[in-house]
Amino acid sequence: MSFTAISTFLLSLLAVMAHAADPLPSWRDGKAKSSIIAFVTAVTTEGGPGFVAPPERVATFDNDGTLWAEQPMYVQFLFALDRVKALAPQHPEWRDKEPFAAVLKGDMKTALAGGERALAELVMATHAGMTTDEFTAIVDAWITTARHPVTKRLYTEMAYQPMLEVLTYLRANGFKTFIVSGGGVEFMRPWSERVYGIPPEQVIGSSIKTVFELRDGKPVLVRQPQIDFIDDKAGKPVGINSHIGRRPIAAFGNSDGDLQMLQYTAAGTGSRLCLFVHHDDDSREWAYDRQSLIGHFDKGLDEATTRGWTVVSMKNDWTTIYRP
Amino acid sequence: MSFTAISTFLLSLLAVMAHAADPLPSWRDGKAKSSIIAFVTAVTTEGGPGFVAPPERVATFDNDGTLWAEQPMYVQFLFALDRVKALAPQHPEWRDKEPFAAVLKGDMKTALAGGERALAELVMATHAGMTTDEFTAIVDAWITTARHPVTKRLYTEMAYQPMLEVLTYLRANGFKTFIVSGGGVEFMRPWSERVYGIPPEQVIGSSIKTVFELRDGKPVLVRQPQIDFIDDKAGKPVGINSHIGRRPIAAFGNSDGDLQMLQYTAAGTGSRLCLFVHHDDDSREWAYDRQSLIGHFDKGLDEATTRGWTVVSMKNDWTTIYRP
Repeated sequence: MSFTAISTFLLSLLAVMAHAADPLPSWRDGKAKSSIIAFVTAVTTEGGPGFVAPPERVATFDNDGTLWAEQPMYVQFLFALDRVKALAPQHPEWRDKEPFAAVLKGDMKTALAGGERALAELVMATHAGMTTDEFTAIVDAWITTARHPVTKRLYTEMAYQPMLEVLTYLRANGFKTFIVSGGGVEFMRPWSERVYGIPPEQVIGSSIKTVFELRDGKPVLVRQPQIDFIDDKAGKPVGINSHIGRRPIAAFGNSDGDLQMLQYTAAGTGSRLCLFVHHDDDSREWAYDRQSLIGHFDKGLDEATTRGWTVVSMKNDWTTIYRP
Repeated sequence: MSFTAISTFLLSLLAVMAHAADPLPSWRDGKAKSSIIAFVTAVTTEGGPGFVAPPERVATFDNDGTLWAEQPMYVQFLFALDRVKALAPQHPEWRDKEPFAAVLKGDMKTALAGGERALAELVMATHAGMTTDEFTAIVDAWITTARHPVTKRLYTEMAYQPMLEVLTYLRANGFKTFIVSGGGVEFMRPWSERVYGIPPEQVIGSSIKTVFELRDGKPVLVRQPQIDFIDDKAGKPVGINSHIGRRPIAAFGNSDGDLQMLQYTAAGTGSRLCLFVHHDDDSREWAYDRQSLIGHFDKGLDEATTRGWTVVSMKNDWTTIYRP
């Protein structure tokens, strides 16, 4: 057998082994689970009408609210608040300057009264002005120690177990899995491989500009207080095209911020899977949709219903919420 | 054996098989060839001082002049000129408007007298104003039929056989290979997988802005006449960080436009390979370096000498230039 023939044979063998057990043990039998399995089966059935060649098996996942929790506040925002507190000793002027003063007093209402400008100030003060390597080290240290205000878990322990199973299931069937998030790309990359099995080069997100510099002859990239790209809503298909250059055949989201990604995915020909996670479990997680500022899910819910996309009820479809 | 154990075993087996024959048959024995082989051996020797875990095996390649020919003019520029001619019937005003009028008369000197502004006008008129899918189809049709003015080969037949062997050799040893080019990312992606075995999601390049639109309910991305990112010189480490999020351990270039990419690569710890292809073969290809506008190679050549980076002589190190 040639090198290629052996590789193909071995990959088939691994695929068969992966199929043997229930690939989605934290999913209750029902429409959502069977829509995922039917899609993967169609895509991988050679000679079948839904077959898709492995290089085209691209699946994109929103992060906040789709792969991990986003309540009561986006994790990256809680990170920014912690950073304001950590940096305060070096910034005595923050004691009299909003939105920093309010954050330091724990008065979130006043802090956010400044709207988007206040938010941008908090982000830039905590995310820019250091090298990319320094920022990675800061995120790494925070994410391995900081705990969620309600559950007291590490944030990375608030990844959704059923979605981790979907990621593994897709990869075992020849998919490349990507994150496509409104969150900052360099906030996710330090831990995405460890938590989701998604390597940095498959993480797409919002970004600020960086500049290449030689510091004492040593090349560094310095993070600038200037938005580069917002990977949300209509930005998601743009980010996907810019980074992947192929149209996904499967897309997973939980809010209107993901709608254009799902529309873009659905518009291709052949097998497609468009799936929204619906937060309807106020005892094990949170329940929110049309009225929520975070994870606002209104037009997306309507369009999913009209077009027959998969809507996952966290309450009914998932036996477990978080990874152990 | 567990799934993981079997996978690891099979991958080792494949690696051994890949090692058996000369992995670089178009390379003459010498410093350049042995520096590549020594690097790959060090990186893949478990327990050795130069070992690098597979996920960190990232190699980046410039395209023009490194993976394929760039003389007498960048291929993408020749594409733009052909597109001006093809689009001329729809633009009668071009007959009296520079730089278009000169291009249509074949008078390149006048066409380029307008400098960067003229160049930008030619690029935008031929690269923007259509959907990404439409542009891909245009590139696809052109690249499979257009021929090089001197060699009369298809441009994709002017990929360098020795570099294709390096790409294959690295991938067989667990590397992910990326293109990091000053050329347009959407100009390369339609054929990079077929010619180089590099999938679209591993191609980084310069780009113009795109905008998501619903046209009659169908989502499309429309290419705008506006620069988004220039992936050249100090832009290359920025593009690498933005798309890959890891520092390469091997980088391949041929001009000063690649110098910062090699510096950034060299600045990491552990095994490194920094390599420049030197165009010194005026009988089989072209000879140019310090004085050339295209492929200008001056500071890079000095720094490579000082730092002991690999400099490949196309004349002496390569038995073959183009892929068959």
